[in-house]
Amino acid sequence: MLVQGKNYKTIWMEGSSVFMIEQNKLPFEFEIIECTTYQETCRAIKDMTVRGAGAIGAAAGYAMAQAYSAACSDKDTFIAKARFGIEATRPTARNLFYAVERVFYAGKISVENAFLEAGKIAEKDMNDTRAIGSFGNELIGNKANILTHCNAGWLAFVDFGTALSPVYTAFNQGKELFVYVDETRPRGQGARLTAWELNNAGIPHRIIADNAAAGLMVQGKIDLVIVGADRIAANGDTANKIGTLDRAILANYFNIPFYIAAPSSTFDFGCASGDKIIIEERSQDEVLFQEGMDENNQWHKIRVSSPGSTAYNPAFDVTPAQLITGIITEKGIIKSTKEAIESLFNSL
Amino acid sequence: MLVQGKNYKTIWMEGSSVFMIEQNKLPFEFEIIECTTYQETCRAIKDMTVRGAGAIGAAAGYAMAQAYSAACSDKDTFIAKARFGIEATRPTARNLFYAVERVFYAGKISVENAFLEAGKIAEKDMNDTRAIGSFGNELIGNKANILTHCNAGWLAFVDFGTALSPVYTAFNQGKELFVYVDETRPRGQGARLTAWELNNAGIPHRIIADNAAAGLMVQGKIDLVIVGADRIAANGDTANKIGTLDRAILANYFNIPFYIAAPSSTFDFGCASGDKIIIEERSQDEVLFQEGMDENNQWHKIRVSSPGSTAYNPAFDVTPAQLITGIITEKGIIKSTKEAIESLFNSL
Repeated sequence: MLVQGKNYKTIWMEGSSVFMIEQNKLPFEFEIIECTTYQETCRAIKDMTVRGAGAIGAAAGYAMAQAYSAACSDKDTFIAKARFGIEATRPTARNLFYAVERVFYAGKISVENAFLEAGKIAEKDMNDTRAIGSFGNELIGNKANILTHCNAGWLAFVDFGTALSPVYTAFNQGKELFVYVDETRPRGQGARLTAWELNNAGIPHRIIADNAAAGLMVQGKIDLVIVGADRIAANGDTANKIGTLDRAILANYFNIPFYIAAPSSTFDFGCASGDKIIIEERSQDEVLFQEGMDENNQWHKIRVSSPGSTAYNPAFDVTPAQLITGIITEKGIIKSTKEAIESLFNSL
Repeated sequence: MLVQGKNYKTIWMEGSSVFMIEQNKLPFEFEIIECTTYQETCRAIKDMTVRGAGAIGAAAGYAMAQAYSAACSDKDTFIAKARFGIEATRPTARNLFYAVERVFYAGKISVENAFLEAGKIAEKDMNDTRAIGSFGNELIGNKANILTHCNAGWLAFVDFGTALSPVYTAFNQGKELFVYVDETRPRGQGARLTAWELNNAGIPHRIIADNAAAGLMVQGKIDLVIVGADRIAANGDTANKIGTLDRAILANYFNIPFYIAAPSSTFDFGCASGDKIIIEERSQDEVLFQEGMDENNQWHKIRVSSPGSTAYNPAFDVTPAQLITGIITEKGIIKSTKEAIESLFNSL
């Protein structure tokens, strides 16, 4: 996607170097990082220089290929150690394990084969998210007002994104549209990353406090909600960033279509329903403090809460299938039902 | 209420001085300000040293009395000018106009009478909010988990508060209870003020990101929602801090009782329904930036959003009467219906 008029991906490979956008510095600074070794790529995953399901998967595949190119004597031990190191970076990221395993087996044939396989994983991510854009575009009428939560844009994938991919496609086709961007506390991925993406693309948008969703809907200012997903169970229940369930219930109350956008790799076909998904609780500091830049470009971490009080900080919630209008996948838009998800599985 | 073991009100008068808690410095510093002239009291209202419906009303009454005590030659002009100045401080605060008018007429009899009237306004605020505590207490079972939004505690009134008054009463009666405090972006009154109040009172609580409400409700962690009100229309539609409507819809979806707590002075009996209430839009900087203390007690204003993006910042929303389980007033708990509100009006 375009940044300052130039085309970028979130992550890519040149020779045996991995290049990626330093996402910890966004939206304040745009910087490209080069990782020349698998250890450097691991560090970038771990410190969230690269984040988002698809982008982490691509990074992990590239890292595994880098490990093969570095292995000389006692290759098996070296590769086993590297695989362990890559898998330890973000142990809950599903795409990471998938990518590491594929490149691990490809590399047993040749180093070249490992690089080819890593490239294919990244390419599939791009193709899938581009297809999501085409299918999702059909849902977006001219002059549509769209609400999105968190960041499921191109920064979370190799390119295009999931929830934002239909927005980009519709905009590029000349449709007039407007995006309301949930701030997405506690980590603010909406205000920081989604707004940055839309700003770069020149797409009209405004950030709202997470509290303003119902106030917009009751005024008729939202035609459509599109969000991403962290994991989709076999019955259509969907885990996503905390606050997604709130938007689904509000959309339901106001009869506004509520769509999930995710590639088939986000589906956990072995997970029967949402109640099997464990809710991760993250550090309460994310709620009690905020970080950002002052007007002199100095970075500060400030307390935005009463000292002495504690916080409860669940990272995501589960939206039941019946609140989801449909799921935009790379194979088409499907219903959030067991039968439709089985068909998707059988088509892979 | 207790602060560091000592009893305080939000605002009080000694002689012709008005004393108040400097709320701009909360939750980081606790400081009492003395305003010796009506002009100083005006400044304190304007810069939000004192905020909240009841507290602003008391401050405005006191300021009008201070003006009477300062008037010497050309008294009528002086008082007219003072009244104009007080009314210009926070032009949308309903209680302010009510208090100014009462003290204005009382002062025509004597300066002493003005001070008496201002004292009565503050005392009525205390009595009303204490009564709200007694009535609301009946709704709180032992081991109740309560969700509240924004700050409708004692800092917003002379003492006790509205939404929090039942919590204080229940806690003082020895009930076990737990309060989940919405951060309440953009201004963070929940994380900053409500959490500070509960912390002082020793009431168990945790701050949550505004996005976490549905996630708590679906887990069965909320038994009851109590919030305050900015204005209640004659049919029960209620304007309150942005995000209140979201909570009402969520509570409705999960069959959780949703109560408004407000004295009869918050009712606008002449306003037929919520659609007559104009939604105030506030500065987008409240969404785009955050202010707070770093670990060295330095104050910073930091950007927490993408530079170049704008924000939409409505200050409140309107919850329709049918989503409100009941309204806790100083006269008892009433239904949010036209008939019940007419009865309340007739009882005043």
